[in-house]
Amino acid sequence: MFNEERHLTSPIRWGMVGGGRGSEIGHAHRAAARRDGFFQLVAGAFDLDAERGREFGSNLGVAPERCYADYTTLFASEAAREDGLQAVSIATPNSTHYEITKAALEAGLHVVCEKPLTFSVAESETLKALAASKNRVLGVMYGYSGFPMLHQAREMVRRGDIGDVRVVNMQFAHGFHNTAVEESSPGAKWRMNPEVSGPTYVLGDIGTHCWQAMEMVTGLVPDELSCMRQSFIESRAPLEDNAHVMVKFKGGAVGTLWASAVNAGSMHQQKIRIVGSKASIEWWDEHPNQLKYEVQGQPAQLLDRGMGYLYGDNPGVCARIGGGHAEGFFESWANIYHRFALAMDAMERHDQAALDGLWYPDADAGISGNRLLECCVESADGGSAWVKF
Amino acid sequence: MFNEERHLTSPIRWGMVGGGRGSEIGHAHRAAARRDGFFQLVAGAFDLDAERGREFGSNLGVAPERCYADYTTLFASEAAREDGLQAVSIATPNSTHYEITKAALEAGLHVVCEKPLTFSVAESETLKALAASKNRVLGVMYGYSGFPMLHQAREMVRRGDIGDVRVVNMQFAHGFHNTAVEESSPGAKWRMNPEVSGPTYVLGDIGTHCWQAMEMVTGLVPDELSCMRQSFIESRAPLEDNAHVMVKFKGGAVGTLWASAVNAGSMHQQKIRIVGSKASIEWWDEHPNQLKYEVQGQPAQLLDRGMGYLYGDNPGVCARIGGGHAEGFFESWANIYHRFALAMDAMERHDQAALDGLWYPDADAGISGNRLLECCVESADGGSAWVKF
Amino acid sequence: MFNEERHLTSPIRWGMVGGGRGSEIGHAHRAAARRDGFFQLVAGAFDLDAERGREFGSNLGVAPERCYADYTTLFASEAAREDGLQAVSIATPNSTHYEITKAALEAGLHVVCEKPLTFSVAESETLKALAASKNRVLGVMYGYSGFPMLHQAREMVRRGDIGDVRVVNMQFAHGFHNTAVEESSPGAKWRMNPEVSGPTYVLGDIGTHCWQAMEMVTGLVPDELSCMRQSFIESRAPLEDNAHVMVKFKGGAVGTLWASAVNAGSMHQQKIRIVGSKASIEWWDEHPNQLKYEVQGQPAQLLDRGMGYLYGDNPGVCARIGGGHAEGFFESWANIYHRFALAMDAMERHDQAALDGLWYPDADAGISGNRLLECCVESADGGSAWVKF
Amino acid sequence: MFNEERHLTSPIRWGMVGGGRGSEIGHAHRAAARRDGFFQLVAGAFDLDAERGREFGSNLGVAPERCYADYTTLFASEAAREDGLQAVSIATPNSTHYEITKAALEAGLHVVCEKPLTFSVAESETLKALAASKNRVLGVMYGYSGFPMLHQAREMVRRGDIGDVRVVNMQFAHGFHNTAVEESSPGAKWRMNPEVSGPTYVLGDIGTHCWQAMEMVTGLVPDELSCMRQSFIESRAPLEDNAHVMVKFKGGAVGTLWASAVNAGSMHQQKIRIVGSKASIEWWDEHPNQLKYEVQGQPAQLLDRGMGYLYGDNPGVCARIGGGHAEGFFESWANIYHRFALAMDAMERHDQAALDGLWYPDADAGISGNRLLECCVESADGGSAWVKF
Repeated sequence: MFNEERHLTSPIRWGMVGGGRGSEIGHAHRAAARRDGFFQLVAGAFDLDAERGREFGSNLGVAPERCYADYTTLFASEAAREDGLQAVSIATPNSTHYEITKAALEAGLHVVCEKPLTFSVAESETLKALAASKNRVLGVMYGYSGFPMLHQAREMVRRGDIGDVRVVNMQFAHGFHNTAVEESSPGAKWRMNPEVSGPTYVLGDIGTHCWQAMEMVTGLVPDELSCMRQSFIESRAPLEDNAHVMVKFKGGAVGTLWASAVNAGSMHQQKIRIVGSKASIEWWDEHPNQLKYEVQGQPAQLLDRGMGYLYGDNPGVCARIGGGHAEGFFESWANIYHRFALAMDAMERHDQAALDGLWYPDADAGISGNRLLECCVESADGGSAWVKF
Repeated sequence: MFNEERHLTSPIRWGMVGGGRGSEIGHAHRAAARRDGFFQLVAGAFDLDAERGREFGSNLGVAPERCYADYTTLFASEAAREDGLQAVSIATPNSTHYEITKAALEAGLHVVCEKPLTFSVAESETLKALAASKNRVLGVMYGYSGFPMLHQAREMVRRGDIGDVRVVNMQFAHGFHNTAVEESSPGAKWRMNPEVSGPTYVLGDIGTHCWQAMEMVTGLVPDELSCMRQSFIESRAPLEDNAHVMVKFKGGAVGTLWASAVNAGSMHQQKIRIVGSKASIEWWDEHPNQLKYEVQGQPAQLLDRGMGYLYGDNPGVCARIGGGHAEGFFESWANIYHRFALAMDAMERHDQAALDGLWYPDADAGISGNRLLECCVESADGGSAWVKF
Repeated sequence: MFNEERHLTSPIRWGMVGGGRGSEIGHAHRAAARRDGFFQLVAGAFDLDAERGREFGSNLGVAPERCYADYTTLFASEAAREDGLQAVSIATPNSTHYEITKAALEAGLHVVCEKPLTFSVAESETLKALAASKNRVLGVMYGYSGFPMLHQAREMVRRGDIGDVRVVNMQFAHGFHNTAVEESSPGAKWRMNPEVSGPTYVLGDIGTHCWQAMEMVTGLVPDELSCMRQSFIESRAPLEDNAHVMVKFKGGAVGTLWASAVNAGSMHQQKIRIVGSKASIEWWDEHPNQLKYEVQGQPAQLLDRGMGYLYGDNPGVCARIGGGHAEGFFESWANIYHRFALAMDAMERHDQAALDGLWYPDADAGISGNRLLECCVESADGGSAWVKF
Repeated sequence: MFNEERHLTSPIRWGMVGGGRGSEIGHAHRAAARRDGFFQLVAGAFDLDAERGREFGSNLGVAPERCYADYTTLFASEAAREDGLQAVSIATPNSTHYEITKAALEAGLHVVCEKPLTFSVAESETLKALAASKNRVLGVMYGYSGFPMLHQAREMVRRGDIGDVRVVNMQFAHGFHNTAVEESSPGAKWRMNPEVSGPTYVLGDIGTHCWQAMEMVTGLVPDELSCMRQSFIESRAPLEDNAHVMVKFKGGAVGTLWASAVNAGSMHQQKIRIVGSKASIEWWDEHPNQLKYEVQGQPAQLLDRGMGYLYGDNPGVCARIGGGHAEGFFESWANIYHRFALAMDAMERHDQAALDGLWYPDADAGISGNRLLECCVESADGGSAWVKF
């Protein structure tokens, strides 16, 4: 069970770029970072509108003089302070992730960046190397990766409970953009603008989530893929609002991925099903406290979070409240920030053993997402040809 | 509600080729054909072992002298009788469908053939033309096509309840053959022998079921497809025990199909989801009395068989028992045989108006299944390239 | 798997009283009785309107002269025939069950009577004794008692899989009569008329179904109960359209029963949950092919019909089609008639061993239903006081 | 959407009695109170072991000198400080609630007390009057009452969406105590000790939760009830580990309640179904983001949290994150503490209008819970006789 008495020597001095007034994702980052007392919000460049950003930050308890007009000033000014920032989270539109993350790492900060990390594998590789050279954490906010039942699934695959993985079906397919809602929704609008969002819409916006879950749980290495994508609302072209992918993994496993924003009537439908030679497991993000476990020839089983039959020695499976109670989105995010904090702390203490035992969504997760998108675009725009990963 | 008083002038004199002792599918045909009193089992060539076939047929009430040693004798002898066969159902291994169906049609019989109709589009086209020239029904036993809720779905799509169809996801993926069960199961063994089963295993054995449902419900016309297939039990090669297909339809809709016999722990998982511009519908064969209907921006709806809000003027939606009660496999099959009987009767009466208003799974459904398999094999064996349908 | 070759020496000559044109339940009886070829419909008194009954019976293939004007004539005339009736099913309004069943037994017929068997325990006891003295089967048509998964549940309880039974919750609660539909529905109207329906409406009409399931599965013996009942549509008084019962069983187990016709929006919601000292089992008639099995401290399990892990040596668990396929209402009824036929045959052959190994819903099930209703009425009308069973 | 910028003029200075090291419920209170920045933990008497309590509090950031040995000292010492406590939460065993709450109110503090508020209606009425005379909030921690979908249900009932309420079925029935776990679990042990837990076990421990939900959602006024309770683990007597209640409400509605700790294999199964004359609604705490809405004669509907079709003007329905994402236990608790904070603030400002528009679980909820328990004990121990509420 969760232990409130567990602390870092002192909370990590933490700030944000973006995530200001009206940003749902900004709230998510702060609620997660504050949850366990490991981070203290001390500075930020919350808004393109400097005045609004200052007012917002102040309302959140940040000293007005530490609410900066832009990230350049933020990093420079804080670097000059004895009690300056140690870590920053970046919750800005996609097109700015690379430059801001780069600047933050160069300023010696740990970074938590929203996904996608950058627009290309090459950029993300650059950032990964930079973080390594600076001995800094570079986390990528795959917000579902903190759900305990996904870590249970990972442990089950590792221990051979399902045998050899044969098939992985992934999907994240909502219906909220089945009409041209971007005409009246700024949040949707920038996501469908390739200059701001990057070379894809739904593949990057949501498809990478279940892709990341697949990698975390199975450890499979993609070999090649084929993708078809569509813009059912034509004005969205060249960005897709629906895409299907077929994947061949090294070693013979195969998979599919469906990402959609036009799956009319669906809330999320983010599901991942992993078929092994002996059994299958399946997880659905809308009911994240359960995991289906189906052994061929036996009754189907439904595992519940918080129960003694789970692999409790896996820290990812630790629960914040007893079984039966529903945990949700905010616990998953808090669990990830918890891991980020432990990683930052371990890195500063040069505690490699601690780092080795600690999973968090890192630059590699970001790079794999970039590679997925690059391959998908190359395939889809090349007649859905097969492309090496 | 079902009307037991509705009859043909006289029951159709009906027989079977195959489907003898121990055949589950043979029982399914007989239970369906007998259900409404439209067919009377009067003859058959039930078994390769003539003596066993005679004993079996006799035990079912067929006169021993009309239990024949083979289909050739069956068709010839019955043709010579005043009260000879009018229709025959063929439930033999796939490799024999073409020749037996051809012989039956040439003998002037109506035919109900198990799927796949033949091994190739060309063969099936030949049979279709033959049936037309003989003015005979050629039905293909797609056993799920009689479920009322699929016909409700078809009617909803027709009436525009979901808007324009954009995406169709199909799957039929069980786990019963996740190990080499064919080593001890004759029924599995012939299905994995290309000489008997044809050029595919799971695609033909089960994939064609959800494909047929897609065509029946949406009327979409396939344009091209890409397929990858695997033999996770290596001894099954070249026949696949798992396959994924991506499809592009004429007019811009797209789809996927997953057929598998290695989906460990699953019973059937035959599901079809049809995403339209306004709403989606989804059906699952294991709980066939329900239909999900999800209109974007509204609460998800669950429609139940037998309710007044369904499109009751559609004969396919007629129920045999009130809502709440579960109908199942046997009702679906009986509904199909009911349609076959009406078609046979109308054809003999040259009642084109009745035929126009009557849907049943016909030669075109068989041909589309053949074409699917041919395209999938060509694609899969050619590096999963895209192939014109 | 079901065996079509299994027969009685000759089919049982069978008839019906009631169940004529427009009767859903009449169709259910005939579909069930004909299913396995064990019964042959040879006579009947199908309708109060003699002419309509004759036309209806003739349309069903009964010789016109064996379609009688009333049950008295039916029994007398058939008794005079060499090839006369052996068994009769009674599907008339409740108030007539006693006299018709009595007459049928006195005429030496086996009887299948719709539930409730009679209006009182005393009447049903009389019939039970009469049947015994005549060496005749007296079956009561509890139509859910043929579902294989209920027999699996029974076997699990017997074998101790759930430990000692502690709590049983039963419910059958639909919403079809949440308004005064009886004003325009004759089928509803007589059910709410105490002279025709008896001293209760929903308790007898549907509550007895889950009560019977409880007895069949658990073998518990009721000790006392308390009941409250309401007529939410006031014109239905004194008959209830909603009732709740608390029960204490001998040995310490307890239970509840909810019967309702005003459970707005529900189809059936017939569910039975049996809580044992180690585990619980739960069954739902709308999805009858599944059974929940929940062992404390283990993942919840979902058992599926047709699987090898079921107790297959129990004849009730025999399947007509492989797992994954949905069986439903008609299979349950056919299974019951199958049992009735075996019982009638064994009784005529004086084969007590066969009878001992054969379960079917008999007079005792009818008597227990009567006793439930008598106790409920006494309790509810006496301020919901506790009443000895 | 949730607004982080919304604040009280200054956070409420807040403390706890109980809820120290190892207390899951203590963590739940703190996580909830801290969530929105409305409360600041400044003092406490966390543990019967003073030293351990001081260490624990210090680890949570409370000044050591404000970690007191007992609640008497806590209230006295803090009252003497300029910056002393304003509010206190009480998370101690049930037997101490009355005296501690009384002392806290007398010390001029707002109080949030764990349920049950006291051991008797009389005691709770005393506390209610005391709180009123002191102009202080007396909240009772019914932790499920903050779930948005329950408030949606409440609003639907208010607006007549289901018509007149006829039947309410409540249950909270887990299986965690199906054996004598109290022999090795201190947390279970005190709950089954009448001197510490009060006159009931499961009725008070969990039954009051769904009872409270019923009152909040429907506003029904109980008239009389009948209860039977059992101690399936005999050593628990006289406290029950299973109980069933039948209730008659004023105006003609009826209901049932099932509370159990021996429902083997269940996690929570807290469900409430409210049947109205037109429609029913149903909610399940394990999947709290959904609400079933079943209108008779229409397809069943599933409402999802965060959607535009909900009654969004109801503050209880405000969401912290968009639809599709799962909210859970911690959000419900945080929502309740949010309401407590607004109430405390409004009360201090003597803002009656604000208070009138603000629902929170108050002393009346506590009193109704006491009355339920008193009536149940009187009924159960009196042969399950009917008892006036």
